[in-house]
Amino acid sequence: MSKTKVAVVGYGVIGQRLADGAALQDDMEVVGVVDVTPTLSIRAMLDGSSPYPIYVFKDSQADAFREEGIKVHGNLNDILAKADIVLDATPAGIGAKNKEIYKSKGKKAIFQGGEKNDVADVFFHGYANYEKGVSKDYLKLTSCNTTGFIRAVDCIDKAVGVDRVVITIIRRVADPGDTHRGIIDLAMVEKVPNHQVKDLMLIMPHIEATGALVHVPTTHGHIITIFLTPKKKLSVSDAVSLFEAHPRIKVVEIAKGFNSNSAMFRYARDKGNKRADMYEIALFKETVVTQRDDLFFTINVPQEAVVTPETIDAIRASLPLQTDQREALTLTNKYLGMGERF
Amino acid sequence: MSKTKVAVVGYGVIGQRLADGAALQDDMEVVGVVDVTPTLSIRAMLDGSSPYPIYVFKDSQADAFREEGIKVHGNLNDILAKADIVLDATPAGIGAKNKEIYKSKGKKAIFQGGEKNDVADVFFHGYANYEKGVSKDYLKLTSCNTTGFIRAVDCIDKAVGVDRVVITIIRRVADPGDTHRGIIDLAMVEKVPNHQVKDLMLIMPHIEATGALVHVPTTHGHIITIFLTPKKKLSVSDAVSLFEAHPRIKVVEIAKGFNSNSAMFRYARDKGNKRADMYEIALFKETVVTQRDDLFFTINVPQEAVVTPETIDAIRASLPLQTDQREALTLTNKYLGMGERF
Amino acid sequence: MSKTKVAVVGYGVIGQRLADGAALQDDMEVVGVVDVTPTLSIRAMLDGSSPYPIYVFKDSQADAFREEGIKVHGNLNDILAKADIVLDATPAGIGAKNKEIYKSKGKKAIFQGGEKNDVADVFFHGYANYEKGVSKDYLKLTSCNTTGFIRAVDCIDKAVGVDRVVITIIRRVADPGDTHRGIIDLAMVEKVPNHQVKDLMLIMPHIEATGALVHVPTTHGHIITIFLTPKKKLSVSDAVSLFEAHPRIKVVEIAKGFNSNSAMFRYARDKGNKRADMYEIALFKETVVTQRDDLFFTINVPQEAVVTPETIDAIRASLPLQTDQREALTLTNKYLGMGERF
Amino acid sequence: MSKTKVAVVGYGVIGQRLADGAALQDDMEVVGVVDVTPTLSIRAMLDGSSPYPIYVFKDSQADAFREEGIKVHGNLNDILAKADIVLDATPAGIGAKNKEIYKSKGKKAIFQGGEKNDVADVFFHGYANYEKGVSKDYLKLTSCNTTGFIRAVDCIDKAVGVDRVVITIIRRVADPGDTHRGIIDLAMVEKVPNHQVKDLMLIMPHIEATGALVHVPTTHGHIITIFLTPKKKLSVSDAVSLFEAHPRIKVVEIAKGFNSNSAMFRYARDKGNKRADMYEIALFKETVVTQRDDLFFTINVPQEAVVTPETIDAIRASLPLQTDQREALTLTNKYLGMGERF
Repeated sequence: MSKTKVAVVGYGVIGQRLADGAALQDDMEVVGVVDVTPTLSIRAMLDGSSPYPIYVFKDSQADAFREEGIKVHGNLNDILAKADIVLDATPAGIGAKNKEIYKSKGKKAIFQGGEKNDVADVFFHGYANYEKGVSKDYLKLTSCNTTGFIRAVDCIDKAVGVDRVVITIIRRVADPGDTHRGIIDLAMVEKVPNHQVKDLMLIMPHIEATGALVHVPTTHGHIITIFLTPKKKLSVSDAVSLFEAHPRIKVVEIAKGFNSNSAMFRYARDKGNKRADMYEIALFKETVVTQRDDLFFTINVPQEAVVTPETIDAIRASLPLQTDQREALTLTNKYLGMGERF
Repeated sequence: MSKTKVAVVGYGVIGQRLADGAALQDDMEVVGVVDVTPTLSIRAMLDGSSPYPIYVFKDSQADAFREEGIKVHGNLNDILAKADIVLDATPAGIGAKNKEIYKSKGKKAIFQGGEKNDVADVFFHGYANYEKGVSKDYLKLTSCNTTGFIRAVDCIDKAVGVDRVVITIIRRVADPGDTHRGIIDLAMVEKVPNHQVKDLMLIMPHIEATGALVHVPTTHGHIITIFLTPKKKLSVSDAVSLFEAHPRIKVVEIAKGFNSNSAMFRYARDKGNKRADMYEIALFKETVVTQRDDLFFTINVPQEAVVTPETIDAIRASLPLQTDQREALTLTNKYLGMGERF
Repeated sequence: MSKTKVAVVGYGVIGQRLADGAALQDDMEVVGVVDVTPTLSIRAMLDGSSPYPIYVFKDSQADAFREEGIKVHGNLNDILAKADIVLDATPAGIGAKNKEIYKSKGKKAIFQGGEKNDVADVFFHGYANYEKGVSKDYLKLTSCNTTGFIRAVDCIDKAVGVDRVVITIIRRVADPGDTHRGIIDLAMVEKVPNHQVKDLMLIMPHIEATGALVHVPTTHGHIITIFLTPKKKLSVSDAVSLFEAHPRIKVVEIAKGFNSNSAMFRYARDKGNKRADMYEIALFKETVVTQRDDLFFTINVPQEAVVTPETIDAIRASLPLQTDQREALTLTNKYLGMGERF
Repeated sequence: MSKTKVAVVGYGVIGQRLADGAALQDDMEVVGVVDVTPTLSIRAMLDGSSPYPIYVFKDSQADAFREEGIKVHGNLNDILAKADIVLDATPAGIGAKNKEIYKSKGKKAIFQGGEKNDVADVFFHGYANYEKGVSKDYLKLTSCNTTGFIRAVDCIDKAVGVDRVVITIIRRVADPGDTHRGIIDLAMVEKVPNHQVKDLMLIMPHIEATGALVHVPTTHGHIITIFLTPKKKLSVSDAVSLFEAHPRIKVVEIAKGFNSNSAMFRYARDKGNKRADMYEIALFKETVVTQRDDLFFTINVPQEAVVTPETIDAIRASLPLQTDQREALTLTNKYLGMGERF
């Protein structure tokens, strides 16, 4: 069977992880990555063990690479000619412009959460609405926070139905190494509701959602508290069992040292995960409680890698490689090391 | 009328603010402050405009002060002989030991939230249970977080009743200048429920409460989201009106720059408040929403000064200066500059 | 004697402090402050005890103030008509544009360090080159870091001459409350040499200077290490004595709790200084050492208020109010509470 | 040839890296690691690809491991019986107690920088004094900062001699994930001189050293500025060439994005290094300048992994595996991926 040829446009924080995620799929291969300048991430890739072929967006950008002794394999048109589908991980707003090019070349594309919704035919989440993405040309993923908490909400929703949620996002404001943004000694409050809970309602229109967003000066993953009214009352142990059965949720115990966003990051480092990345959200076991018929719990969303699985799902839906959600996600999970399960 | 004589034991972050708060009351005077070593705060007080007489705990501690040229007025026994009541703001656990001394001298005392509940006859909050503190010898204040969110919960409770709350505390982990504690680039999660919501249920036993606590690396005040089920449905504007009428709640607008814990701190600095302190909690107007019959909103609790008003209330209750809550709190508020109102 | 009439254009972090600094001078008065929108600082000023008259830059900006119930006294032309001199504390680059207006109205002006040097006739520091600023129409102050370390270098220079310096600046990257910039969990290195040491050489051309600049995620003042080759060898105690005699340098002891930028901030809060500001740089006594003939020491520069004294000096030089440096600075120091001394 | 059997006692931040470093040496094998409780790092090791056999310190500690389903291979005595040498990476002070046990069993041991100097026969640095460690039973490594800057100072010293240094350390105060220490929004100053420059003088007694230490709230590596008087004047390009030739120094360019401690960390993550670790210190090319006959430059020391190479060197010296420094270090460097060179 020939492999699906994936091009990654934009090799930043997200793009490099999408490339690695696609390369891990037995039924996919990465034909190359596109960037506009030889960034730190490009240099690191070249100094690492298995670099992808590098393409520039425009030919005029090739010189800066060549001056560094970096081989350039062509421009955007060249890579599009080789690809079945594009993962666009360019900065917010650029994807919409790129779409016109992809369209003119007849290529399908998956966009990230920074783009506006109208860039795509479907606003997509692998678990929550896979079927809507099947055979569609342009899918847009939910952003990292939303991708993360929808996993947990959908997990309960699939089991007993969810009526409403109230979510407080404690958001890391920059990625490790970022110098272009950040706040110091400050927790910044946003208007309620935020785009993340609105996005949840777009993906899961049967659920009422509201909540707060507070930006805090950390780099290692969002912490999110979720208050959720299930359609059928769940005990704490039932809820924990549901979460433990989910391949993209890792239930962890504060008592065992998993007490923070950064403990998860340290665990991933010490375990030897590439880039210290986690695909799973973490769910802190000791934070799961019920109040009357409602459920309350706290999760950690690793902002850099969390969207990779759902982006791979999107490739499967769009082409489509699988029309059946269970079949598709089981493959994604298997190849990303989260077990051959749904 | 003779003034009530107040002794402050422990001149740290809290103690110095309690002293200033008591000194601002027309019907109270600070007879002195007790500390064990010439700290930065002691030095700052002496370099400032109106220092309080300094006492040591034990005579042997006086030399360290005298070597710095600081006059010592006596020891704990000496100041107790002059005082009607003690505000104990010593580090957690010390207050319980000091209580035996206060008791042996027949002095009433007010303890802070770091002590265990059994140090006191009553666990006290000026607004939520003033009447329970009247004429009691030993009162313990709620801690800063609990003091802050009880104000908001009690505000709604007094108006329409409150059935239950779900609270997420985003907790600053150190005060400005602290070097003995802190976390960096990390948001640490605690077991649910935390002591703060348990404390709320001790003070307001008719309300069911749960919630999360996340420690974040900031120094300027806690941010807290509150989901609250009122006994009678409230519109957003009704809720905002109730909050605006409360003398110890300052309703602020994100759109006007009040967008964070630190914006409140900067406002207090620029306004010229001593130590850039705020007695009021801030309530972010654009975060007040309803979901069905429930209310959701976000507040900021300035951890250093927030307990001052309720501590002054406690003096009034304990002696008692006023047996009527409304009368007592109106005076506290007036002298602290929050308006002559309840 | 009639007072010198000072207008402050730009009421941000620096502008509000310059206004207060000028208002504290017995021989000056602040005729008003100019801003373009009702910021948090404007609101705080109005809620405080002694607000200055507010002017807008352009009439069209007045509505936003009036909607908040804030009285507007006129526009830039109106205030210039009343002023003898302007303190321009607008964002970097705006001052250069404003200069044309000041010039057209025949008004002298003092610019801050964010402007380019060519905005002014003289690049000015009260202690290092007062005489150059006398009677000049347009002076530009050194930036906060440079203002601070020049005080210390000049202090030694005046005593025994300074041959060269090597300076490492550990720079706070934002002011308390800033949300528009910041880095998190990162120490960012700049090319050597930085503009600050170049600026020192412009002000003190007889000294050779180089050094590093590292941005760190703090808000409360820069920490700077200085290696200095004096023309005549100094003992540690001689050097400390020189620093202690300087009215704008506060020699502090780590052993007494003055162990950081934030300890200085806390001291100023606890002392009751408005906005917790310090005009003095702090010099950490236990960091003063000699190596062979060289001197090494560490200072703290409070970035928000440190330029106020030298800006007041600049008013005195420009008009001139005093042609003699000693006479001028003695007055500035006296009115700012640093003692009637030079 | 049989491999040298290495036991690692203490599997924390340092211990796990030493174990991996030893395991990478073709002529060494790790017979096991000792810890007292199933920490996050132990769990991560077991969840990773190649766990080491786990031993407990005392038998009574085995239950806690077994309850988690973790196989325990024995106690300290058991592992010592199998080992040729011990790498002790226990918390500061514990190593001294452990030494008595190692001694009673006739085992050589290498201690880390947290122990007091008298724990060892020699205070050791692979490059600066390898010969002193040859055949000695107990070696103590320099701490992370000192290990890092001695590399750079020794590099110049070996080429032209070094007369003196003045060093400013901007120290990260916690490792990623640490919750037991940290400062927030604060840069804390230590007395001059600090232990690090004293340690340099112990290792390199022919060099005069002083300098400052400032703690800052970051987790990703120390930034250090070094002013150095060489015995023979060096041009910037000569100095850069010397640094570039050093296998444990990576010369990087700010202009290429290597602008901070965290940029180095991000580079290592993106490159795919295990735990995002770097063995090399980074030297920022654009910070290398001369002033008269002196050299000034800035380095980054990755605190977690930097001592690994010199610790491996210590094994080679102590046993000894190689009596010749060049031969020993060339092997260490080769096996750790820094090139087969000295």
